[in-house]
Amino acid sequence: MNASDFRRRGKEMVDYMADYLEGIEGRQVYPDVQPGYLRPLIPATAPQEPDTFEDILQDVEKIIMPGVTHWHSPYFFAYFPTASSYPAMLADMLCGAIGCIGFSWAASPACTELETVMMDWLGKMLQLPEAFLAGEAGEGGGVIQGSASEATLVALLAARTKVTRRLQAASPGLTQGAVLEKLVAYASDQAHSSVERAGLIGGVKLKAIPSDGKFAMRASALQEALERDKAAGLIPFFVVATLGTTSCCSFDNLLEVGPICHEEDIWLHVDAAYAGSAFICPEFRHLLNGVEFADSFNFNPHKWLLVNFDCSAMWVKRRTDLTGAFKLDPVYLKHSHQGSGLITDYRHWQLPLGRRFRSLKMWFVFRMYGVKGLQAYIRKGSDGLNEALLERINSARKIHLVPCRLRGQFVLRFAICSRKVESGHVRLAWEHIRGLAAELLAAEEGKAEIKS
Amino acid sequence: MNASDFRRRGKEMVDYMADYLEGIEGRQVYPDVQPGYLRPLIPATAPQEPDTFEDILQDVEKIIMPGVTHWHSPYFFAYFPTASSYPAMLADMLCGAIGCIGFSWAASPACTELETVMMDWLGKMLQLPEAFLAGEAGEGGGVIQGSASEATLVALLAARTKVTRRLQAASPGLTQGAVLEKLVAYASDQAHSSVERAGLIGGVKLKAIPSDGKFAMRASALQEALERDKAAGLIPFFVVATLGTTSCCSFDNLLEVGPICHEEDIWLHVDAAYAGSAFICPEFRHLLNGVEFADSFNFNPHKWLLVNFDCSAMWVKRRTDLTGAFKLDPVYLKHSHQGSGLITDYRHWQLPLGRRFRSLKMWFVFRMYGVKGLQAYIRKGSDGLNEALLERINSARKIHLVPCRLRGQFVLRFAICSRKVESGHVRLAWEHIRGLAAELLAAEEGKAEIKS
Repeated sequence: MNASDFRRRGKEMVDYMADYLEGIEGRQVYPDVQPGYLRPLIPATAPQEPDTFEDILQDVEKIIMPGVTHWHSPYFFAYFPTASSYPAMLADMLCGAIGCIGFSWAASPACTELETVMMDWLGKMLQLPEAFLAGEAGEGGGVIQGSASEATLVALLAARTKVTRRLQAASPGLTQGAVLEKLVAYASDQAHSSVERAGLIGGVKLKAIPSDGKFAMRASALQEALERDKAAGLIPFFVVATLGTTSCCSFDNLLEVGPICHEEDIWLHVDAAYAGSAFICPEFRHLLNGVEFADSFNFNPHKWLLVNFDCSAMWVKRRTDLTGAFKLDPVYLKHSHQGSGLITDYRHWQLPLGRRFRSLKMWFVFRMYGVKGLQAYIRKGSDGLNEALLERINSARKIHLVPCRLRGQFVLRFAICSRKVESGHVRLAWEHIRGLAAELLAAEEGKAEIKS
Repeated sequence: MNASDFRRRGKEMVDYMADYLEGIEGRQVYPDVQPGYLRPLIPATAPQEPDTFEDILQDVEKIIMPGVTHWHSPYFFAYFPTASSYPAMLADMLCGAIGCIGFSWAASPACTELETVMMDWLGKMLQLPEAFLAGEAGEGGGVIQGSASEATLVALLAARTKVTRRLQAASPGLTQGAVLEKLVAYASDQAHSSVERAGLIGGVKLKAIPSDGKFAMRASALQEALERDKAAGLIPFFVVATLGTTSCCSFDNLLEVGPICHEEDIWLHVDAAYAGSAFICPEFRHLLNGVEFADSFNFNPHKWLLVNFDCSAMWVKRRTDLTGAFKLDPVYLKHSHQGSGLITDYRHWQLPLGRRFRSLKMWFVFRMYGVKGLQAYIRKGSDGLNEALLERINSARKIHLVPCRLRGQFVLRFAICSRKVESGHVRLAWEHIRGLAAELLAAEEGKAEIKS
């Protein structure tokens, strides 16, 4: 396949992509296939001679699509959202053509520098404390990891190295094995399974802190565990606080947990993989309060911020904590600017050596939506829409509501008033409201199509 | 940006990609920029209102391209090759549209099953021992990792868990810390820096085995280290053998090292990241002899087999070694087929939870090139070309050579014959051969263009 074939097939693929996403509602969200369905449908070995592109595209519909779980179907409510936007896809195409491996500054300066600046852009959108930004001379900064699991593991390993060095400096002769034996990490019993896994990989104990009635980790339970473990001769060194747990999107109490970690000199990692995108809206930013106590913070734009997988955003306050844990400099990766202090070699910030030009996706998405567009996507609705809905409800004359304002937001109030009201009435009213809302949203979508 | 905008912009992007790759020879391979060049060129914060796509594409040329190291330039001889092919780019576009996260079978059955079958296809191309293939009821199988670094780390962690359990079963009460303290891993002093890093992350000692005069790890040096360490009470548990080292593409002696590992019950991981693609050619397959002693084997199709980054192929003989090391099953990731023994949940085979539909790239590339096309790409030349070159050399009458055959291959012999020959003559002869070879290759490329 030469460039001119690619021009033709690439354009066909663009249409296939658009067709797929426009028609996704019509595909069954979860496939009917049984385990092992695919193997009998394709040959046992690769073909000796080339197949045609037409054959392959036909097989995509015949063999692949029947086995796909359609994560972007509007009927997909499993696991968690994964981002999908056209600007991100365009950027990924460009990333594929450039095809550089940006493990060091010299391996592709644009790849490293755009990432640093995009992580600053995003950090500012979230109003992260200045200490997390790279700026021109900051000690912190951001990095794109492949997943929140990797971010948690990288943070745990950096914390492990840091505490080990501190203990060994205080007691020369103390072996790494003896330290590992005593280290304990903590997370709420609601934390994601990848936290437990990071503990396993790092070879340290991980203890689950019982969450409270709202599934949140609180000061008292954490403090209790710390005291018990310290009394038993163990060394608490790492806490993961979750903002938006997987099961129910509960929030650990960062304003309680943060000061404890600070006081006890324990590395605090904040995992907001699922919910973090919301913090770009000022009205949700208070949920991130307490992040100023964290050593590292992570959330996934590839979940809810329209940047396609993979793009897991991680910030640290002291970049030397990461590079100190991982830095190895073989001659074949050295370059002349390395010692300048000005440059970033992202291979020291992550587990793998290789890395793609993922910041292009952030750049395209942030620019083509604008911050306001991204905020509107998170909100997915507006006071104006709510007002229009109330207007429709009251014009239809079937039920009657009045609105209120709560902290500036227009809210539809549904009060159970009459002595005669039964659950059947409430159900009917709810059906009626849902119907009118669906009509309104369909009308709005029509307007949006015409405009764009 | 809606679907119809994407159809238009996507097609423009396809042309941009083709233009970039067709014109890459004209771009300076390594950029002139200094560290920090990019930040002053773009705003300090994300725009509030959307930018246009035209602006962004213009900025790609103005801001990004001047800072790109062009890995696909024919003048790029640094680091290692990274694969780039149009079929892989097409598959990546499709992967972006489907956008599923295939961490378990149920999360997208096609994503898991195509990967298993493609890894079998590739394993068969390499003539890997049957034990590494999944087949319909095999105990082994393949997985796509992001990078060889991750493959090495995953293998080391699996080996660590296995030996720890064995030791703890033999001596109940033995703590993990006590075991870790004694574990030792080994690799040649020529092994990639990621091996040392895997040791650091895994919290185990890693010892470098001095390589021989050909930069290869041999039995004697390994055996010596093992004996010394065992005598000191340490526990050897993991050996990495490299086929194709980074510095000079040297090969550890697998036929010597393999039997030792087998006898000592040490996990043998074979890392052929750089050279492994060559083993699809029967004439190079002997370089892989001894892989039958390995527990895990890895190479990077994303280096030299035309499958764009990231696609690092890893096989194990016993999949339970990996799943045993990493398996954690929270309720929100359980699915009904899980216990059936028939299905693969790749999240237990790797470090991150999320994973893209990367096997599409292998499928597209293997089918559109065919095995013969891939072999021709590895060989990048033929007996026919060599014969044509000799014909040109001898017709030009400036120098005179005769050919020979070595193990069936047509070879140009250059013998220093005359008593009067000096280094100047050899240099002139070499320049002359190079000139004729360049003419020949240009003529061949012209023919290929017309044909395709």
